[in-house]
Amino acid sequence: MTDENIVYVGNKPVMNYVLAVVTQVNNGANEVYLKARGRAISRAVDVAEIVRNRFVTDIEVGNITIGTEEVSDDSGVTNVSIIEIPLLK
Amino acid sequence: MTDENIVYVGNKPVMNYVLAVVTQVNNGANEVYLKARGRAISRAVDVAEIVRNRFVTDIEVGNITIGTEEVSDDSGVTNVSIIEIPLLK
Repeated sequence: MTDENIVYVGNKPVMNYVLAVVTQVNNGANEVYLKARGRAISRAVDVAEIVRNRFVTDIEVGNITIGTEEVSDDSGVTNVSIIEIPLLK
Repeated sequence: MTDENIVYVGNKPVMNYVLAVVTQVNNGANEVYLKARGRAISRAVDVAEIVRNRFVTDIEVGNITIGTEEVSDDSGVTNVSIIEIPLLK
């Protein structure tokens, strides 16, 4: 797994990330990993669903993993949830 | 799987749902399913992480599934993403 196979989902419009995944698949990637944390987790699920329902119908969702990361900000250290969604051809 | 084993995660504070899961486990449930849709998906992941990191450390996350549901509202039919997170003892 190289960095090119990872799409980090943040706060941009969902179709930006859909396009990023579809581009990687069209360039020959057999697996693309969606990663997100905090509130962007819902958007990562949206990206996975839109990709496989509308654009790459032969792609499958692999074993989804969740976890917790520590993030430092002005008010100290807080925990944030993360998700990783593998999309596999 | 009976209805009592499902915790629907919505827009209430995350600790409400954590308490619901912990109560079910303390009442003898060996599996609890977190379900959420739309933006509440991130909160469902938070619930799973808080439960297993802080309250029920011997619980494990099972095979997470995602999907799409059609929802009717005033402006017609829209698609919304859903998630199901099994918590297994």
